[in-house]
Amino acid sequence: MANPLTPDVLVDPVVLTRTLVDIESVSRDEKVIADCVEDVLRQSPHLHTERYGNTVMARTGLGRGQRVILAGHLDTVPINGNFPSTVVDDLIYGCGTSDMKSGVALALHLAATLPEPGYDVTYLFYEAEEIESQFNGLHLVAQEHPEWLRADFAVLLEPTYGVVEAGCQGTLAARIRTHGRRAHTARAWRGVNAIHAAGEVLRRLADYRPRTVTIDGCTYREGLNAVRIVGGVAGNVVPDECEVEVNLRFAPDRTEKQALDHVHEVFADFDIEVTDSAPGALPGLGAAPAREFLTAVGAEPAAKLGWTDVSRFAALGIPALNYGPGDPALAHAPDEHVEIGKIRDGAATLHRWLTAYE
Amino acid sequence: MANPLTPDVLVDPVVLTRTLVDIESVSRDEKVIADCVEDVLRQSPHLHTERYGNTVMARTGLGRGQRVILAGHLDTVPINGNFPSTVVDDLIYGCGTSDMKSGVALALHLAATLPEPGYDVTYLFYEAEEIESQFNGLHLVAQEHPEWLRADFAVLLEPTYGVVEAGCQGTLAARIRTHGRRAHTARAWRGVNAIHAAGEVLRRLADYRPRTVTIDGCTYREGLNAVRIVGGVAGNVVPDECEVEVNLRFAPDRTEKQALDHVHEVFADFDIEVTDSAPGALPGLGAAPAREFLTAVGAEPAAKLGWTDVSRFAALGIPALNYGPGDPALAHAPDEHVEIGKIRDGAATLHRWLTAYE
Repeated sequence: MANPLTPDVLVDPVVLTRTLVDIESVSRDEKVIADCVEDVLRQSPHLHTERYGNTVMARTGLGRGQRVILAGHLDTVPINGNFPSTVVDDLIYGCGTSDMKSGVALALHLAATLPEPGYDVTYLFYEAEEIESQFNGLHLVAQEHPEWLRADFAVLLEPTYGVVEAGCQGTLAARIRTHGRRAHTARAWRGVNAIHAAGEVLRRLADYRPRTVTIDGCTYREGLNAVRIVGGVAGNVVPDECEVEVNLRFAPDRTEKQALDHVHEVFADFDIEVTDSAPGALPGLGAAPAREFLTAVGAEPAAKLGWTDVSRFAALGIPALNYGPGDPALAHAPDEHVEIGKIRDGAATLHRWLTAYE
Repeated sequence: MANPLTPDVLVDPVVLTRTLVDIESVSRDEKVIADCVEDVLRQSPHLHTERYGNTVMARTGLGRGQRVILAGHLDTVPINGNFPSTVVDDLIYGCGTSDMKSGVALALHLAATLPEPGYDVTYLFYEAEEIESQFNGLHLVAQEHPEWLRADFAVLLEPTYGVVEAGCQGTLAARIRTHGRRAHTARAWRGVNAIHAAGEVLRRLADYRPRTVTIDGCTYREGLNAVRIVGGVAGNVVPDECEVEVNLRFAPDRTEKQALDHVHEVFADFDIEVTDSAPGALPGLGAAPAREFLTAVGAEPAAKLGWTDVSRFAALGIPALNYGPGDPALAHAPDEHVEIGKIRDGAATLHRWLTAYE
C-alpha cells in the first residue's frame, strides 16, 4: 500500500486528521498506522526515529536547553458504524476524530514540517491506550526505553476541546462485602440477610459529601460511587453475601495511600478489598515550558477530572497536561466528531509555542 | 430389567424405601421408576391403574362414602455423591430418602397390601416436582385428567418428620427497580446513581416487621426478603438502573391479590414487577377424613411454611395436608437421610387411619 501520509497531506492538519481517521487502527491492530507514521518520520532528516512494537518515537537533537514531549495514542475504540470519516459543514465525523487522531495529526504535522523548534521535541505515537494497562505503549516504553521519555514537560494531545486540562484525579476501586447466613425464605428468621445489610453501605454512599479542591488554580471535584452491586443465591434463599463495588475519584492532593485510608474510614467495620488504584497527578504548572505553553494558549487551565496517561508522566517526574482539539464528551460515541476550527486553532497555538524561542 | 419391587419388598416399607432410593430418578428421568411402580399397581386386582407421562394413578372402587388421596412425587434433585443408599445404624442415607421416597414407600406399601381400606383411596405417584411448575405431574394431571383428583381429602407424603403440617404459605416474587442517569464517575455529579437509590429499598426491607398469624391452631410466620440484587454498567460509570428481587412468603389468610397489594404498599413509589406468585392454602382441617386423620396421628397440626403441592389440591377445593417420615431440614442436602423408626411409625399410623372404619 502506498503511504497515504504524503507531503501534501502532512502540511494540512485538517486533511491529515481525515487521512489518519481513514487508516483503521482499533487497539491491538495498529501495525498499518504505525508503519505509515514511522515511514513519514524516518524521511525527516531532522528527526531520530525508533520503534518498539507499534509505538514510534522521533526526536530532534538540536541541543536546546529544554526538551518537551508531544504524545498521542494511535489506537481507537472499536468502530461503531462510524468508519471511514465524513465531513458535514465544519465537522469531521468518524471513529477517533476526537479521541484522538486530531491530536495525533497536530503532533505529526509539526514533526514533519517544523525542523527547528525552540525546544528539543520528542514526538511519541503510541499503541493500545484504550485497553488494559498492560498493553499501553506509554507504559511499555516507560519500562523498556525509559530514556525515550526524558523531558522537562509533556503535552498529551487527548481531547480537551482546546482548553488546557492540568493534572488528573486518582482513582481507586474497592469491593465492600456484607455477610449473613443462608436460610430458606419460608424460614427467613433462621438466616441473616446480607443484601439487607448492604443497605448501610448504600446509605453511606448516598450521604457522602465529596470534596472540591483547588490546586494551582485548577478545581478538582471528587466523587465516591457504587458502580456495581451483586448478591443472591436463589429465589427462595436468604442470601449470605452481597458485594458493592465502589469507585473513588480523588483530587491529586491525596496520595493513593491516603485515598485508601479514606475508603476504610467511610466504610469502617465493613469487609473491604481494593481491586484497583492509580495515583492522580498534580497540575505541575510551575515548569518553565508549562508557563510558556499557557502563555501561548492564552487561557487559564482547568482541572482534568478523568484519569489519563498524564499520570504516567507525573510518576516519572515530568510535569504534563492535556491539550487537544477533540471534544471529550464525544469520545467513544458513535457520532464522534471534531470541529475543523479547533484543529486549525490547535495547530496555530502549538506552532506559536514551539517557535516563540526559535 | 427384573422389577426390584417384588412382593417381599412391598410388604416392608423400610426395605421398600431403600429399593426405591436405589432406582435413580432425577427429575425428567423418571421413566424407569414409573415403569416399576405401574407394574406393581397393575398386578393388584383391587386397583384400577392409569398412567400419564411418568405419572401413575391407581384407585380402589369400593363404593365407600369418602375418597382420600395419598400422593407423592417420584423424582429427586440431582444426585450429589449420595447414590445408592447406605444404612448406618437406624438411618438410611441417600438421595431422595427424606424427600420423598420414604413417603412414596408408605403409599406404595399400602396400595399393594391393603385391598379394602375404610375409604376409597386414590394413590398418585407423580413426576417432576423438583423442577419448574410446567413439568409438574400433579399440575399436568389437574389439567389433562382432573377426574383422577376427585376426592374429599388428600395427604401429601412430603417430609414433615412425622408431624402433620397443614395448609401452606403463599409466595410472591417481585423485582423492585430504581432508575438514575449514567455519567462518567469522574463527573459523577452529572449523573444520578440508581444503586444509591436502591438503599431506600433495602432500608424498608431491613425495617420490615413480618406478621405471625394463627389459623385452625396453626401458626404461620411471614417473611419479606431480598433474594437477589444486581446493578452496574462498568467500573467507571454511574449506573442508571438497579434491580432488587424480593420474595414475600405470606400466610394463607391473604389472597394472592392481597399479597400483591401489600408489596405495592411496602414499596410505594418504586417501579415494581411481579415475576411469580402462588397462593397459600388454608389448613382445611374441618373435613371429616382430616379430623379422623388427626385422631390417628394423635398430635396437633403445625403450620406448613414452605410452599408445597398442597396448594394445588387447595386450588381444586380438596383439603390437603403434608405428612411424611422424612426430615424437611435434610431435603436436597448431600447427607440426606431418613430414620427407620419414622418410616415404621408412618406406616403404622396410615394403616390405623385407613382401617379404623373398615
